[in-house]
Amino acid sequence: MTAPRHLLSIDDLDRAGIERILDRAASFAEVAGREIKKVPALRGRTVVNLFYEASTRTSSSFELAAKRLSADVVSVRAATSSVTKGESLKDTVQTLTAYDPAAIVIRSPHAGAAQLVARWTDAAVVNAGDGKHEHPTQALLDVYTLRRRLGALDGKNIWIVGDVLHSRVARSDILAFARMGAQVTVSGPPTLLPRGIEALGCEVAPTLERLAEADVVYVLRMQNERMDEAYVPSLREYAARYQVNAARLQPHQLLMHPGPVNRGVELSADAIDSPQALIAQQVEAGVVVRMAVLYELLAGSGAGAPLVAEAAAEAVALA
Amino acid sequence: MTAPRHLLSIDDLDRAGIERILDRAASFAEVAGREIKKVPALRGRTVVNLFYEASTRTSSSFELAAKRLSADVVSVRAATSSVTKGESLKDTVQTLTAYDPAAIVIRSPHAGAAQLVARWTDAAVVNAGDGKHEHPTQALLDVYTLRRRLGALDGKNIWIVGDVLHSRVARSDILAFARMGAQVTVSGPPTLLPRGIEALGCEVAPTLERLAEADVVYVLRMQNERMDEAYVPSLREYAARYQVNAARLQPHQLLMHPGPVNRGVELSADAIDSPQALIAQQVEAGVVVRMAVLYELLAGSGAGAPLVAEAAAEAVALA
Amino acid sequence: MTAPRHLLSIDDLDRAGIERILDRAASFAEVAGREIKKVPALRGRTVVNLFYEASTRTSSSFELAAKRLSADVVSVRAATSSVTKGESLKDTVQTLTAYDPAAIVIRSPHAGAAQLVARWTDAAVVNAGDGKHEHPTQALLDVYTLRRRLGALDGKNIWIVGDVLHSRVARSDILAFARMGAQVTVSGPPTLLPRGIEALGCEVAPTLERLAEADVVYVLRMQNERMDEAYVPSLREYAARYQVNAARLQPHQLLMHPGPVNRGVELSADAIDSPQALIAQQVEAGVVVRMAVLYELLAGSGAGAPLVAEAAAEAVALA
Repeated sequence: MTAPRHLLSIDDLDRAGIERILDRAASFAEVAGREIKKVPALRGRTVVNLFYEASTRTSSSFELAAKRLSADVVSVRAATSSVTKGESLKDTVQTLTAYDPAAIVIRSPHAGAAQLVARWTDAAVVNAGDGKHEHPTQALLDVYTLRRRLGALDGKNIWIVGDVLHSRVARSDILAFARMGAQVTVSGPPTLLPRGIEALGCEVAPTLERLAEADVVYVLRMQNERMDEAYVPSLREYAARYQVNAARLQPHQLLMHPGPVNRGVELSADAIDSPQALIAQQVEAGVVVRMAVLYELLAGSGAGAPLVAEAAAEAVALA
Repeated sequence: MTAPRHLLSIDDLDRAGIERILDRAASFAEVAGREIKKVPALRGRTVVNLFYEASTRTSSSFELAAKRLSADVVSVRAATSSVTKGESLKDTVQTLTAYDPAAIVIRSPHAGAAQLVARWTDAAVVNAGDGKHEHPTQALLDVYTLRRRLGALDGKNIWIVGDVLHSRVARSDILAFARMGAQVTVSGPPTLLPRGIEALGCEVAPTLERLAEADVVYVLRMQNERMDEAYVPSLREYAARYQVNAARLQPHQLLMHPGPVNRGVELSADAIDSPQALIAQQVEAGVVVRMAVLYELLAGSGAGAPLVAEAAAEAVALA
Repeated sequence: MTAPRHLLSIDDLDRAGIERILDRAASFAEVAGREIKKVPALRGRTVVNLFYEASTRTSSSFELAAKRLSADVVSVRAATSSVTKGESLKDTVQTLTAYDPAAIVIRSPHAGAAQLVARWTDAAVVNAGDGKHEHPTQALLDVYTLRRRLGALDGKNIWIVGDVLHSRVARSDILAFARMGAQVTVSGPPTLLPRGIEALGCEVAPTLERLAEADVVYVLRMQNERMDEAYVPSLREYAARYQVNAARLQPHQLLMHPGPVNRGVELSADAIDSPQALIAQQVEAGVVVRMAVLYELLAGSGAGAPLVAEAAAEAVALA
């Protein structure tokens, strides 16, 4: 697989492609440890953040990633834009494309939105979450976080627990974990497990009985509104059967969650605050992994792609 | 006419002033074609974007223009500002003026707002749309787009079609096209043509019968809410009489629209996607024309104004 | 007192600490008078603005201060963030902390919020207003403005008039003015004067009868909603008893207000526009004082803190 132009799905990346991004992220983590956390890689180039959903962590993380690559960043949010005038996604993308951005980062409540954007623009497109479909940079930062802790994912047993049905994170993580050699199992109430999910490369466990087999427990966010929608009878009952807590978690297991956590629902407070939890590390990985994705798409492909050592040299030059 | 301090109306510019901005924009278009799309012209200076109306294209275009001139940009939007506390425009402008910005870019739903802002600040003021009054940078980018295609506007026949009554774009375009030597005709339902519009320097045609005379057809956005307000009986009837489509458009005519387009209302899909349409080029012109406006107001006047060649040299120095 | 890590309250600063910030602000005022208004002091470092309340002046002033120190700025506003998903302040701060920002500037409707943020992050925390508690940078810019006009505050008589009860500005100002050697008196309707306010180091005057004694009259904003809440019978009656106007103001007195002003309520138009009013100077001081606060917290402590002369040298180097 050659270097992809876009990152729409984890399927755009083979194992080598994922590893190249993770290696690049590791070199940026080294930059992030310095006082001057910038490299001039994307100086004079423009990154557009187009967010049709409220978001703190993903939008600020992409914004900071682009700024630390020295790009000019334009953030367009649905709430304050002419999107409210009924301007279509296509019109908006064509407008923004006219500014000749290097990349468009798109978050949308609609599955497939990023794919559409890629059809309408010359810019590199990064999917920052499209409906229930995918959230590939989240999966990459999850793999990055696990790889740093475990060395490699090969043969590891990873359980993904909770509302898989509505989770773009779950979909991207299943693909990414499997591609990196892990065994993936999903578990949750039958109403929240999509039929045929096995096709993505995972097993299904209806209960947490065999949870002790897992090396890593990845807990999904349980959205309160699911209760109103009758996917679960009550959050209390959900918590009784599927909450990951100190009683259910084994000492050798690592715990992950994409955030923000509903304390006392899908995770107990003791689990969140345990040393097994990698939640803070996941967030921390967000900026460097997104720097790496932008860098690989915009500066890493083609002949003159600077190596890791050169990126470090650039950082020194900037300082 | 000497170089104006503000751009509040197309009336602030004589033909030479318009041409100076267009020439400058052309030099910035050359910069925009490079990988590093920046010049250091406004480094260390501040541009405030004060937007009291939702906007994607205009606000992001001004923001990017200022950033590509290396200015620091502060964006204040009504929705997230203390404007919601009832702070008056005057107070807000005085507050922002205290930061000593080089320019304030103002969009407001109120005609005359930009004029008021100019009275209350030392900064250069750019009108980014004030109610139904004017939108001069849109007109400049329209002239820029036409000039690139036609060489000159002298003697060209330009028809402006649709809701002229509510359109600040129409008002600025009539002035600008006329100043550049074109013959301007406006056409639309009588309820949507303001009385006395001829005084701006145009003719009025109540129907599209003579549309074939036009060299350029400039179609205005038809806002859906006009129907509720009983300016038109129905969008269907409006479209039947005034929609510009393949049946009405001659092969030699150029088609323009300020965007965003209501597909199937004022323009048919086939017209939008025809090679005669300059809509994408208009949007593309937005950033470079706004860079040129900011540059002329802030760096271009006075003795040491760098020539086009010097701007290019600056860009090289930045790279 | 050693250099504080955070600025949560004026109580974090002794008189020498306040003076150090004011001196630094004066050196930045000199930079602000140049065409290139930047210094490279915080290049490559990140400042997060986390605003849970609508604000124009404070948020844009902090944003600009950070940009003029060459920091990368990420602004998170409640209205457009996942705060709307019910994400807790703690989760948000932990997320933002994972980006390793140098500083978090926090505004919140809840008293004590800044203190909590400081507990959850390694970043320097600046309180930009927490409920009715404090607004220390406002007090610092007030002292800065007065010091520029009066030389020193020692022995000066400062009256703070109006809704002291709901005013974080009043609380911070009383502390700061007293620390700088002034005699502080608060005055307003008994319903709007908190019991025990004398403990902060001020006297209480129930009427404006003795207002002529003041060297400085600091008028607080009267929020319209207080009338609905029955703190005052009517704004008209409030104005009759407590409005500061030309009739009540002595020619030798200086007039201050934190803005935005309700014209005709707490201040008459003639008072606002009189040469005694320092309101514009207060706003103007906002950027340089906030630059100084960020600089002192992030670059000024520790061994290698550049002196004022060095900051100027840096500015030259940047130009």
